[in-house]
Amino acid sequence: MLKIGLLGAGRIGQVHAAAISAHPDSVLAAVSDVYVPAAEALATPYDAAVKSSDEIIADSAIDAVLVATSTDTHSDLIEAATRAGKAVLCEKPVDLSLARARVCLANAEQTGQPVMVGFNRRFDPNFALIKAGLAAGEIGKAELLSITSFDPAPPPVSYIKVSGGLFRDMMIHDFDMANFIMGEAPVSISATGSCVVDPEIGAAGDIDTAIVTLTYADGKLAVIKNSRRAGYGYDQRLEVLGADGLLQANNMLESSVVKSTIDGVVSAKPTYFFLERYMPAYRAEWAAFVEAMQANNPMPVTLEDGVQALAMAEAAKQSLDTGKPVALADV
Amino acid sequence: MLKIGLLGAGRIGQVHAAAISAHPDSVLAAVSDVYVPAAEALATPYDAAVKSSDEIIADSAIDAVLVATSTDTHSDLIEAATRAGKAVLCEKPVDLSLARARVCLANAEQTGQPVMVGFNRRFDPNFALIKAGLAAGEIGKAELLSITSFDPAPPPVSYIKVSGGLFRDMMIHDFDMANFIMGEAPVSISATGSCVVDPEIGAAGDIDTAIVTLTYADGKLAVIKNSRRAGYGYDQRLEVLGADGLLQANNMLESSVVKSTIDGVVSAKPTYFFLERYMPAYRAEWAAFVEAMQANNPMPVTLEDGVQALAMAEAAKQSLDTGKPVALADV
Amino acid sequence: MLKIGLLGAGRIGQVHAAAISAHPDSVLAAVSDVYVPAAEALATPYDAAVKSSDEIIADSAIDAVLVATSTDTHSDLIEAATRAGKAVLCEKPVDLSLARARVCLANAEQTGQPVMVGFNRRFDPNFALIKAGLAAGEIGKAELLSITSFDPAPPPVSYIKVSGGLFRDMMIHDFDMANFIMGEAPVSISATGSCVVDPEIGAAGDIDTAIVTLTYADGKLAVIKNSRRAGYGYDQRLEVLGADGLLQANNMLESSVVKSTIDGVVSAKPTYFFLERYMPAYRAEWAAFVEAMQANNPMPVTLEDGVQALAMAEAAKQSLDTGKPVALADV
Amino acid sequence: MLKIGLLGAGRIGQVHAAAISAHPDSVLAAVSDVYVPAAEALATPYDAAVKSSDEIIADSAIDAVLVATSTDTHSDLIEAATRAGKAVLCEKPVDLSLARARVCLANAEQTGQPVMVGFNRRFDPNFALIKAGLAAGEIGKAELLSITSFDPAPPPVSYIKVSGGLFRDMMIHDFDMANFIMGEAPVSISATGSCVVDPEIGAAGDIDTAIVTLTYADGKLAVIKNSRRAGYGYDQRLEVLGADGLLQANNMLESSVVKSTIDGVVSAKPTYFFLERYMPAYRAEWAAFVEAMQANNPMPVTLEDGVQALAMAEAAKQSLDTGKPVALADV
Repeated sequence: MLKIGLLGAGRIGQVHAAAISAHPDSVLAAVSDVYVPAAEALATPYDAAVKSSDEIIADSAIDAVLVATSTDTHSDLIEAATRAGKAVLCEKPVDLSLARARVCLANAEQTGQPVMVGFNRRFDPNFALIKAGLAAGEIGKAELLSITSFDPAPPPVSYIKVSGGLFRDMMIHDFDMANFIMGEAPVSISATGSCVVDPEIGAAGDIDTAIVTLTYADGKLAVIKNSRRAGYGYDQRLEVLGADGLLQANNMLESSVVKSTIDGVVSAKPTYFFLERYMPAYRAEWAAFVEAMQANNPMPVTLEDGVQALAMAEAAKQSLDTGKPVALADV
Repeated sequence: MLKIGLLGAGRIGQVHAAAISAHPDSVLAAVSDVYVPAAEALATPYDAAVKSSDEIIADSAIDAVLVATSTDTHSDLIEAATRAGKAVLCEKPVDLSLARARVCLANAEQTGQPVMVGFNRRFDPNFALIKAGLAAGEIGKAELLSITSFDPAPPPVSYIKVSGGLFRDMMIHDFDMANFIMGEAPVSISATGSCVVDPEIGAAGDIDTAIVTLTYADGKLAVIKNSRRAGYGYDQRLEVLGADGLLQANNMLESSVVKSTIDGVVSAKPTYFFLERYMPAYRAEWAAFVEAMQANNPMPVTLEDGVQALAMAEAAKQSLDTGKPVALADV
Repeated sequence: MLKIGLLGAGRIGQVHAAAISAHPDSVLAAVSDVYVPAAEALATPYDAAVKSSDEIIADSAIDAVLVATSTDTHSDLIEAATRAGKAVLCEKPVDLSLARARVCLANAEQTGQPVMVGFNRRFDPNFALIKAGLAAGEIGKAELLSITSFDPAPPPVSYIKVSGGLFRDMMIHDFDMANFIMGEAPVSISATGSCVVDPEIGAAGDIDTAIVTLTYADGKLAVIKNSRRAGYGYDQRLEVLGADGLLQANNMLESSVVKSTIDGVVSAKPTYFFLERYMPAYRAEWAAFVEAMQANNPMPVTLEDGVQALAMAEAAKQSLDTGKPVALADV
Repeated sequence: MLKIGLLGAGRIGQVHAAAISAHPDSVLAAVSDVYVPAAEALATPYDAAVKSSDEIIADSAIDAVLVATSTDTHSDLIEAATRAGKAVLCEKPVDLSLARARVCLANAEQTGQPVMVGFNRRFDPNFALIKAGLAAGEIGKAELLSITSFDPAPPPVSYIKVSGGLFRDMMIHDFDMANFIMGEAPVSISATGSCVVDPEIGAAGDIDTAIVTLTYADGKLAVIKNSRRAGYGYDQRLEVLGADGLLQANNMLESSVVKSTIDGVVSAKPTYFFLERYMPAYRAEWAAFVEAMQANNPMPVTLEDGVQALAMAEAAKQSLDTGKPVALADV
């Protein structure tokens, strides 16, 4: 039974606590949060201890830590936990600073401890089927990937201000998804973006709508579309055109009910909330982490993957700022 | 915290054990099974006691029992448990004998104890939405209900022999669904059926394919189609035509992935296994039972509902045997 | 170039006139109608002569006649035209009287002239694909056929009164479709029906909603559902369960446009008007008639098929009236 | 009755001949082709004269000419025909040279004769519904347009060599579609493209796969994806995200038949051939031309629209060559 320390008791920490606890081979041993009552509220139903992050990392009875704190603490905590001999599952992004993330990667690698980055969408069964279908040659060699990723509604502007911006906060999932599906990183990234959803987001220095194009060494192409608002739900689709056909992952719908009247044929909307859509993915992500730890296998999503996606976000930001494509090798 | 005794540790008992245990207000206190090792295997991970059914029913610390034993014991156990002052959730069917089920109903009613019958499909979110849409007047008054209910594969012939036959074992779910959606029982039932899937089923005295038509006092009509085999999955659809439109509940699919190649556009199949399809319904069923117990409300599916569906199965059997419609009032 | 005489210049006559004229091997030579101005209005744009039905039938320059007059004249016109050595395509139903239709069949057969009955739906590309898929063994042997056939709105009650009733006027299409798909006629027919759409229809002695079950010699089953009103459009679906799977023909939709908003995901409705849905079928029907004439092949839908469907309508009516299944051999 | 001269008797000329002839207010009066037997073969069934292009343009009895010749002759023929006082419907593109097209536009405008460019997709009922839905405010203000346009198979390399390249030959339809849907031209265009379908296409100096991003003055964004090969059919989809929702035009399918077996649920493919998909659009296009001529209204697609789309193709080519976004105002 793996004893897990959870750093961060916010919304995403709560999701992970449930997954840790539900897994037959892991137990939530301790929880920390800068706001102690939050840690207490989360720890109590799981019979977990409430400690500081430092205490958890120093606790030799803890086998692994799950880092679900604010982004600015990720690198430090990864370094501290790996130095302390613990396996780590850290939420995305690794850091807002690519340079810092790279230092973190180097330091963590020196410890030899396994670090996984929480790109939960890789564990969505639909996207995993696309990956498997490609690997099985169902549509031949991939040529053109298209990712549609719209949030149902924008987060508060206060969050936007500290989020690192759309590329680092939101599209980073899609950058990693492109790497996952394509099996390699692109060579060049070209971004366009604008603020059409909410001028407050623009005033906060961010964009809310973006199209980013990726080109690959062998000529493959990919495009990612992001919007902070698709009022009808959480629109998460992906399709890849290959030499022999097309693989598509469509949205999960709220129900299978269809109503036909004189006003039209009405189906259910895509699930609205990210947890509704990706809860199975969070559970599968945790199971994959546990399995890799137990088998001493490489993590299914590495810290390097996390840094790679961050580099792509950085390249996209540079491209947006300069109006020119940016070589990934140059960031 | 309600203390629950589970009678029967077979496949469906295991499903209920998980639902009982996962519910915040109930705990699996004791398990019985005629095959004691099965009870032990199920009880151990839940820290539940292993007892005989009699002991569980006699145990004053037990608040409610869940009857998941073989059908021939249902009536006796419902009577014993209600006599002992316990609430009961009993799997369908109440009994293979309509007469016995009616006696059981009378006896249970005398105790005043609440009894719920496990028609889990009422708690399927899709079917529940159909019911709610009708109640909300989304398509006006119901006129024509159509239920398609195909199993992925027939059960072993050994099971068929003791099942009570297709009407009592399989279509009973659909009879109850018709009552649920229509909000009343039909006045007349007309059945056709045959054995085209597997001659062994016919040799065992049963049919494997059936169409049953229901007529209602006010002219509404319903039709239920059953087959023991739809190789592509568990085909569970329902549609109701009303004065102003149509409501349909389509199948749940294994994924949202679509593959387009020269050979066609291939979508995911309906989920194959009944638990995959109806697990949310089993959880919701248990939650509804707990909620009704706690609030001292009428059970959402009553023992009378269970007897009603059984009477419809009996009428269908008589109709099949005589080749004539049978008035429900006459069985 | 086949010279065609069209008897009847009503709505369906106009449909056929267009199909006759558009076919490269046939020309609309003459048109008759009891209301001469209607014949003139239809004939003029096609440069066709306006004559009486008798004149057209007597005209040796006419190769074939298309009978699109009122139902009570069909048998007489088929007999007269075949006696005059002409091929005939006659609209359904052959007659409202099964006895009269049988006499007509006998008389027409004596002339040796080919007679086709206008069951246009056999030529709908989707239903034809189902038939072809079954023939190709795509789902193994057929076991359970289900036909859903709802009109968008009921016809005027004045029409209902002379229509012969729902079974002869509307469901006759579905009886023929069952024969087409199953490749044989059923042995027994059981009908339920009621008047829930419009009490005026009931006052006119008809039903507006019906479910008819068909049983076959080898155990196959079929069910046909009819309603005179499905406000959302012309609902024409068919599905057949076979030993290895399911074939479904879904509705044709008005467009491929989907709108997703907070209110739901809205797709296009089924086409509303029967001509919109079945125009390709009418054209293909005519082409099949011409091809059979030219090749001296048997007609793809025979007069016997027309009488068979009428017998099934008669059996359904008897079943509805008596409340018992009726053997097709007994009508 | 408008008398129409058709210049060019190739595949697309044949499509237009059928539309001209089928329209009640137009007649195909004359046909020309550099290969006279082709003109003769096309003219004969329509009873049209065979003449040279010069003769047709000089013929005062001809009201309008339809230019369906090779692209290098378009500008000259538009100029000659408008000078001769004729209305013109010219196939896309106006010219391979943007400069030449602009001269043609200036010259044609001086004559005051109406010129329409054959962007047939504007008349596709589905895309037209999207445009209408946007205009009706169904999803609020447009924010992000996405066009997927894949051919089923690449044309012969010999054609590629004279086609002007993917942007001028294929994506030009999508540039016009973006202008149609967005109601304005973009300010900047950024292109990526590669040759992954067939190296022969690359050897011919062209690309076969491309992603082009468009940015608009007010922050709207659009992306167009092209591939010369989607083996499963002609993939023509469009979706636009607005402030209040999403409008999508999905593919037209070959049938409404669905087959479910153990191997999956197989639907029909998108129609494969462009004529199958867009024939209704060609007919509607011609009807719109005739209607504008008769009413003396502005053409629904102007020569300026044709030049605008060509300028976008030119900008895309420059962007591809330079690796930088190109301002549309700069080409």
